[in-house]
Amino acid sequence: MAGIEITPATPTDVPLLLTLIRALAEYERLADQVSATEDRLRESLFGPHPAAEVVIGRLDGQPVAFALFFQTYSTFLGRPGVYLEDIFVKPECRGRGLGEALLRHLARVAVERDCGRFEWAVLDWNAPAIGFYRKLGAEVLADWRICRVAGEALARLGAVPPMPAA
Amino acid sequence: MAGIEITPATPTDVPLLLTLIRALAEYERLADQVSATEDRLRESLFGPHPAAEVVIGRLDGQPVAFALFFQTYSTFLGRPGVYLEDIFVKPECRGRGLGEALLRHLARVAVERDCGRFEWAVLDWNAPAIGFYRKLGAEVLADWRICRVAGEALARLGAVPPMPAA
Repeated sequence: MAGIEITPATPTDVPLLLTLIRALAEYERLADQVSATEDRLRESLFGPHPAAEVVIGRLDGQPVAFALFFQTYSTFLGRPGVYLEDIFVKPECRGRGLGEALLRHLARVAVERDCGRFEWAVLDWNAPAIGFYRKLGAEVLADWRICRVAGEALARLGAVPPMPAA
Repeated sequence: MAGIEITPATPTDVPLLLTLIRALAEYERLADQVSATEDRLRESLFGPHPAAEVVIGRLDGQPVAFALFFQTYSTFLGRPGVYLEDIFVKPECRGRGLGEALLRHLARVAVERDCGRFEWAVLDWNAPAIGFYRKLGAEVLADWRICRVAGEALARLGAVPPMPAA
Protein backbone atom coordinates (compact mmCIF):
# COMPACT_ATOMS: atom_id res chain seq x y z
CA MET A 1 0.00 0.00 0.00
CA ALA A 2 1.49 3.28 -1.14
CA GLY A 3 3.07 5.60 1.40
CA ILE A 4 2.98 3.10 4.29
CA GLU A 5 6.08 2.28 6.28
CA ILE A 6 6.38 0.17 9.45
CA THR A 7 9.59 0.18 11.48
CA PRO A 8 10.66 -0.85 14.99
CA ALA A 9 10.44 2.05 17.46
CA THR A 10 13.66 3.53 18.85
CA PRO A 11 14.28 5.49 22.07
CA THR A 12 13.81 8.76 20.16
CA ASP A 13 10.20 7.71 19.48
CA VAL A 14 9.26 7.76 23.20
CA PRO A 15 7.62 11.25 23.24
CA LEU A 16 5.66 10.33 20.07
CA LEU A 17 4.69 7.00 21.60
CA LEU A 18 3.33 8.61 24.77
CA THR A 19 1.28 11.04 22.64
CA LEU A 20 -0.18 8.14 20.66
CA ILE A 21 -0.89 6.11 23.85
CA ARG A 22 -2.81 9.10 25.27
CA ALA A 23 -4.74 9.52 22.02
CA LEU A 24 -5.65 5.82 22.12
CA ALA A 25 -6.86 6.13 25.71
CA GLU A 26 -9.06 9.09 24.74
CA TYR A 27 -10.55 7.04 21.92
CA GLU A 28 -11.25 4.11 24.26
CA ARG A 29 -12.80 6.50 26.83
CA LEU A 30 -10.13 5.41 29.33
CA ALA A 31 -7.98 8.55 29.48
CA ASP A 32 -8.04 8.58 33.28
CA GLN A 33 -6.20 5.24 33.32
CA VAL A 34 -2.97 6.48 31.72
CA SER A 35 -0.15 6.83 34.22
CA ALA A 36 2.73 6.05 31.82
CA THR A 37 5.48 8.66 31.59
CA GLU A 38 8.30 9.14 29.08
CA ASP A 39 10.82 7.92 31.66
CA ARG A 40 8.85 4.77 32.38
CA LEU A 41 8.39 3.96 28.71
CA ARG A 42 12.09 4.54 28.03
CA GLU A 43 13.18 2.34 30.92
CA SER A 44 10.69 -0.50 30.36
CA LEU A 45 10.80 -0.66 26.55
CA PHE A 46 14.36 0.43 25.69
CA GLY A 47 16.30 -0.41 28.86
CA PRO A 48 18.42 -3.52 29.48
CA HIS A 49 15.33 -5.81 29.71
CA PRO A 50 12.70 -4.64 27.20
CA ALA A 51 9.27 -5.81 28.38
CA ALA A 52 7.60 -5.49 24.97
CA GLU A 53 8.26 -4.50 21.35
CA VAL A 54 6.87 -1.49 19.52
CA VAL A 55 6.52 -0.65 15.84
CA ILE A 56 5.72 2.79 14.47
CA GLY A 57 3.53 3.21 11.40
CA ARG A 58 4.19 6.07 9.00
CA LEU A 59 1.98 7.49 6.30
CA ASP A 60 3.79 9.56 3.67
CA GLY A 61 6.69 9.86 6.11
CA GLN A 62 4.60 11.06 9.07
CA PRO A 63 4.47 8.86 12.20
CA VAL A 64 0.74 8.43 12.87
CA ALA A 65 0.33 4.94 14.32
CA PHE A 66 1.86 2.41 16.68
CA ALA A 67 1.49 -1.19 17.76
CA LEU A 68 2.91 -2.67 20.96
CA PHE A 69 3.22 -6.44 21.33
CA PHE A 70 4.84 -9.15 23.43
CA GLN A 71 5.26 -12.92 23.47
CA THR A 72 2.70 -15.20 25.08
CA TYR A 73 2.49 -18.97 25.49
CA SER A 74 -0.21 -21.55 24.85
CA THR A 75 -0.09 -24.68 27.02
CA PHE A 76 -2.53 -26.41 24.67
CA LEU A 77 -0.27 -25.82 21.65
CA GLY A 78 3.00 -26.04 23.58
CA ARG A 79 4.13 -23.02 21.54
CA PRO A 80 4.58 -19.29 22.00
CA GLY A 81 2.19 -16.72 20.58
CA VAL A 82 2.14 -12.99 19.86
CA TYR A 83 -0.16 -10.69 21.83
CA LEU A 84 -0.96 -7.26 20.45
CA GLU A 85 -1.48 -5.11 23.53
CA ASP A 86 -2.35 -1.94 21.64
CA ILE A 87 -2.75 -0.75 18.10
CA PHE A 88 -3.66 2.83 17.23
CA VAL A 89 -3.92 4.85 14.05
CA LYS A 90 -4.68 8.56 14.37
CA PRO A 91 -8.37 9.00 13.48
CA GLU A 92 -7.66 11.45 10.64
CA CYS A 93 -5.32 8.88 9.02
CA ARG A 94 -7.71 5.92 8.94
CA GLY A 95 -9.09 4.26 5.85
CA ARG A 96 -5.75 4.17 4.06
CA GLY A 97 -4.71 0.66 5.08
CA LEU A 98 -2.28 1.41 7.90
CA GLY A 99 -4.18 -0.61 10.54
CA GLU A 100 -4.38 -3.59 8.24
CA ALA A 101 -0.70 -3.24 7.34
CA LEU A 102 0.21 -3.21 11.07
CA LEU A 103 -1.85 -6.35 11.75
CA ARG A 104 -0.32 -8.14 8.74
CA HIS A 105 3.14 -7.07 9.89
CA LEU A 106 2.58 -8.61 13.34
CA ALA A 107 1.04 -11.76 11.87
CA ARG A 108 4.22 -12.10 9.82
CA VAL A 109 6.33 -11.66 12.98
CA ALA A 110 4.24 -14.45 14.60
CA VAL A 111 4.72 -16.78 11.63
CA GLU A 112 8.47 -16.07 11.45
CA ARG A 113 8.84 -16.83 15.16
CA ASP A 114 6.91 -20.12 14.83
CA CYS A 115 4.07 -18.86 17.02
CA GLY A 116 0.78 -20.74 17.11
CA ARG A 117 -1.45 -17.75 17.78
CA PHE A 118 -1.76 -14.03 17.29
CA GLU A 119 -4.18 -12.46 19.76
CA TRP A 120 -5.48 -9.15 21.05
CA ALA A 121 -8.51 -7.76 22.86
CA VAL A 122 -11.28 -5.53 21.55
CA LEU A 123 -14.02 -3.60 23.35
CA ASP A 124 -17.33 -5.33 22.69
CA TRP A 125 -19.02 -2.03 21.71
CA ASN A 126 -16.43 -1.33 19.01
CA ALA A 127 -18.38 -2.88 16.14
CA PRO A 128 -16.29 -1.31 13.33
CA ALA A 129 -13.10 -2.79 14.84
CA ILE A 130 -14.71 -6.21 15.36
CA GLY A 131 -15.93 -6.31 11.76
CA PHE A 132 -12.49 -5.28 10.51
CA TYR A 133 -10.73 -7.96 12.59
CA ARG A 134 -13.13 -10.68 11.45
CA LYS A 135 -12.52 -9.77 7.80
CA LEU A 136 -8.81 -10.35 8.41
CA GLY A 137 -9.47 -13.86 9.71
CA ALA A 138 -9.78 -13.28 13.45
CA GLU A 139 -12.15 -15.27 15.60
CA VAL A 140 -13.76 -13.26 18.43
CA LEU A 141 -13.91 -15.49 21.51
CA ALA A 142 -17.37 -14.90 22.96
CA ASP A 143 -17.08 -16.80 26.25
CA TRP A 144 -13.78 -15.71 27.79
CA ARG A 145 -13.58 -12.81 30.24
CA ILE A 146 -10.41 -11.13 31.43
CA CYS A 147 -9.78 -11.06 35.20
CA ARG A 148 -7.52 -8.34 36.52
CA VAL A 149 -5.95 -7.63 39.90
CA ALA A 150 -4.20 -4.26 40.11
CA GLY A 151 -3.27 -1.46 42.51
CA GLU A 152 -4.22 -1.99 46.15
CA ALA A 153 -5.90 -5.33 45.42
CA LEU A 154 -2.66 -6.63 43.88
CA ALA A 155 -0.62 -5.44 46.83
CA ARG A 156 -3.02 -7.24 49.18
CA LEU A 157 -3.10 -10.48 47.20
CA GLY A 158 0.69 -10.48 46.85
CA ALA A 159 1.44 -9.62 50.47
CA VAL A 160 3.66 -12.08 52.29
CA PRO A 161 1.42 -13.94 54.78
CA PRO A 162 2.05 -13.15 58.45
CA MET A 163 4.09 -15.75 60.30
CA PRO A 164 1.82 -18.10 62.26
CA ALA A 165 1.80 -17.42 66.00
CA ALA A 166 4.32 -19.61 67.84
CA MET B 1 -1.83 -23.63 54.59
CA ALA B 2 -0.66 -27.03 55.78
CA GLY B 3 0.78 -29.49 53.31
CA ILE B 4 0.99 -27.00 50.42
CA GLU B 5 4.21 -26.45 48.54
CA ILE B 6 4.78 -24.37 45.40
CA THR B 7 8.04 -24.66 43.46
CA PRO B 8 9.30 -23.73 39.98
CA ALA B 9 8.92 -26.60 37.51
CA THR B 10 12.05 -28.36 36.22
CA PRO B 11 12.58 -30.37 33.01
CA THR B 12 11.79 -33.60 34.91
CA ASP B 13 8.26 -32.23 35.48
CA VAL B 14 7.45 -32.22 31.73
CA PRO B 15 5.50 -35.53 31.65
CA LEU B 16 3.53 -34.46 34.75
CA LEU B 17 2.90 -31.06 33.19
CA LEU B 18 1.50 -32.56 29.98
CA THR B 19 -0.80 -34.81 32.04
CA LEU B 20 -2.07 -31.79 33.98
CA ILE B 21 -2.51 -29.71 30.77
CA ARG B 22 -4.63 -32.53 29.30
CA ALA B 23 -6.69 -32.77 32.47
CA LEU B 24 -7.28 -29.00 32.36
CA ALA B 25 -8.40 -29.23 28.73
CA GLU B 26 -10.88 -31.99 29.62
CA TYR B 27 -12.26 -29.80 32.41
CA GLU B 28 -12.64 -26.83 30.05
CA ARG B 29 -14.32 -29.09 27.44
CA LEU B 30 -11.48 -28.25 25.04
CA ALA B 31 -9.60 -31.56 24.94
CA ASP B 32 -9.55 -31.56 21.13
CA GLN B 33 -7.45 -28.39 21.15
CA VAL B 34 -4.38 -29.90 22.86
CA SER B 35 -1.52 -30.50 20.44
CA ALA B 36 1.33 -29.96 22.92
CA THR B 37 3.84 -32.80 23.24
CA GLU B 38 6.53 -33.51 25.83
CA ASP B 39 9.23 -32.52 23.33
CA ARG B 40 7.55 -29.21 22.55
CA LEU B 41 7.04 -28.34 26.21
CA ARG B 42 10.66 -29.24 26.99
CA GLU B 43 12.02 -27.14 24.14
CA SER B 44 9.77 -24.09 24.63
CA LEU B 45 9.78 -23.96 28.44
CA PHE B 46 13.20 -25.34 29.41
CA GLY B 47 15.29 -24.68 26.31
CA PRO B 48 17.69 -21.77 25.76
CA HIS B 49 14.83 -19.23 25.43
CA PRO B 50 12.03 -20.15 27.85
CA ALA B 51 8.76 -18.69 26.57
CA ALA B 52 6.96 -18.86 29.91
CA GLU B 53 7.42 -19.89 33.56
CA VAL B 54 5.72 -22.76 35.34
CA VAL B 55 5.20 -23.57 39.01
CA ILE B 56 4.07 -26.94 40.33
CA GLY B 57 1.75 -27.17 43.35
CA ARG B 58 2.11 -30.07 45.76
CA LEU B 59 -0.31 -31.28 48.40
CA ASP B 60 1.24 -33.51 51.07
CA GLY B 61 4.17 -34.08 48.72
CA GLN B 62 2.07 -35.08 45.69
CA PRO B 63 2.22 -32.86 42.56
CA VAL B 64 -1.43 -32.13 41.79
CA ALA B 65 -1.49 -28.61 40.32
CA PHE B 66 0.32 -26.23 38.02
CA ALA B 67 0.28 -22.62 36.94
CA LEU B 68 1.93 -21.26 33.78
CA PHE B 69 2.57 -17.54 33.43
CA PHE B 70 4.47 -14.98 31.38
CA GLN B 71 5.21 -11.26 31.35
CA THR B 72 2.90 -8.78 29.68
CA TYR B 73 3.02 -5.00 29.28
CA SER B 74 0.54 -2.20 29.84
CA THR B 75 0.99 0.90 27.69
CA PHE B 76 -1.37 2.84 29.96
CA LEU B 77 0.74 2.07 33.04
CA GLY B 78 4.08 2.00 31.21
CA ARG B 79 4.89 -1.09 33.26
CA PRO B 80 5.04 -4.85 32.82
CA GLY B 81 2.40 -7.21 34.16
CA VAL B 82 2.00 -10.91 34.88
CA TYR B 83 -0.41 -13.02 32.84
CA LEU B 84 -1.55 -16.37 34.19
CA GLU B 85 -2.16 -18.46 31.08
CA ASP B 86 -3.36 -21.55 32.94
CA ILE B 87 -3.97 -22.69 36.47
CA PHE B 88 -5.20 -26.17 37.31
CA VAL B 89 -5.72 -28.17 40.47
CA LYS B 90 -6.79 -31.81 40.12
CA PRO B 91 -10.53 -31.92 40.89
CA GLU B 92 -10.10 -34.42 43.75
CA CYS B 93 -7.62 -32.06 45.44
CA ARG B 94 -9.74 -28.91 45.45
CA GLY B 95 -11.07 -27.14 48.51
CA ARG B 96 -7.79 -27.32 50.40
CA GLY B 97 -6.43 -23.91 49.42
CA LEU B 98 -4.00 -24.87 46.67
CA GLY B 99 -5.64 -22.70 43.99
CA GLU B 100 -5.64 -19.70 46.27
CA ALA B 101 -2.03 -20.38 47.28
CA LEU B 102 -1.02 -20.47 43.59
CA LEU B 103 -2.78 -17.17 42.86
CA ARG B 104 -1.21 -15.52 45.91
CA HIS B 105 2.18 -16.88 44.87
CA LEU B 106 1.87 -15.32 41.40
CA ALA B 107 0.56 -12.03 42.82
CA ARG B 108 3.69 -11.97 44.98
CA VAL B 109 5.84 -12.58 41.88
CA ALA B 110 4.05 -9.64 40.19
CA VAL B 111 4.63 -7.35 43.19
CA GLU B 112 8.30 -8.38 43.48
CA ARG B 113 8.85 -7.64 39.78
CA ASP B 114 7.20 -4.22 40.05
CA CYS B 115 4.33 -5.23 37.78
CA GLY B 116 1.22 -3.08 37.58
CA ARG B 117 -1.24 -5.87 36.83
CA PHE B 118 -1.87 -9.55 37.32
CA GLU B 119 -4.36 -10.90 34.78
CA TRP B 120 -5.88 -14.09 33.44
CA ALA B 121 -8.96 -15.22 31.53
CA VAL B 122 -11.95 -17.20 32.75
CA LEU B 123 -14.78 -18.91 30.88
CA ASP B 124 -17.96 -16.92 31.46
CA TRP B 125 -19.94 -20.05 32.37
CA ASN B 126 -17.50 -20.97 35.14
CA ALA B 127 -19.40 -19.23 37.96
CA PRO B 128 -17.53 -20.97 40.82
CA ALA B 129 -14.20 -19.78 39.42
CA ILE B 130 -15.50 -16.23 38.85
CA GLY B 131 -16.80 -16.03 42.43
CA PHE B 132 -13.50 -17.33 43.77
CA TYR B 133 -11.46 -14.81 41.75
CA ARG B 134 -13.68 -11.90 42.81
CA LYS B 135 -13.24 -12.84 46.47
CA LEU B 136 -9.48 -12.59 45.98
CA GLY B 137 -9.81 -9.03 44.65
CA ALA B 138 -10.04 -9.60 40.90
CA GLU B 139 -12.17 -7.42 38.68
CA VAL B 140 -13.85 -9.29 35.81
CA LEU B 141 -13.71 -7.06 32.74
CA ALA B 142 -17.16 -7.35 31.18
CA ASP B 143 -16.62 -5.50 27.92
CA TRP B 144 -13.38 -6.86 26.47
CA ARG B 145 -13.35 -9.76 24.02
CA ILE B 146 -10.30 -11.72 22.91
CA CYS B 147 -9.58 -11.84 19.18
CA ARG B 148 -7.51 -14.75 17.91
CA VAL B 149 -5.90 -15.60 14.58
CA ALA B 150 -4.44 -19.11 14.41
CA GLY B 151 -3.68 -21.97 12.04
CA GLU B 152 -4.48 -21.36 8.38
CA ALA B 153 -5.88 -17.89 9.06
CA LEU B 154 -2.59 -16.87 10.70
CA ALA B 155 -0.57 -18.24 7.80
CA ARG B 156 -2.74 -16.24 5.38
CA LEU B 157 -2.60 -13.00 7.38
CA GLY B 158 1.16 -13.33 7.86
CA ALA B 159 1.95 -14.26 4.26
CA VAL B 160 4.47 -12.02 2.53
CA PRO B 161 2.51 -9.98 -0.03
CA PRO B 162 3.24 -10.84 -3.66
CA MET B 163 5.58 -8.48 -5.47
CA PRO B 164 3.64 -5.96 -7.55
CA ALA B 165 3.77 -6.71 -11.27
CA ALA B 166 6.54 -4.78 -13.02
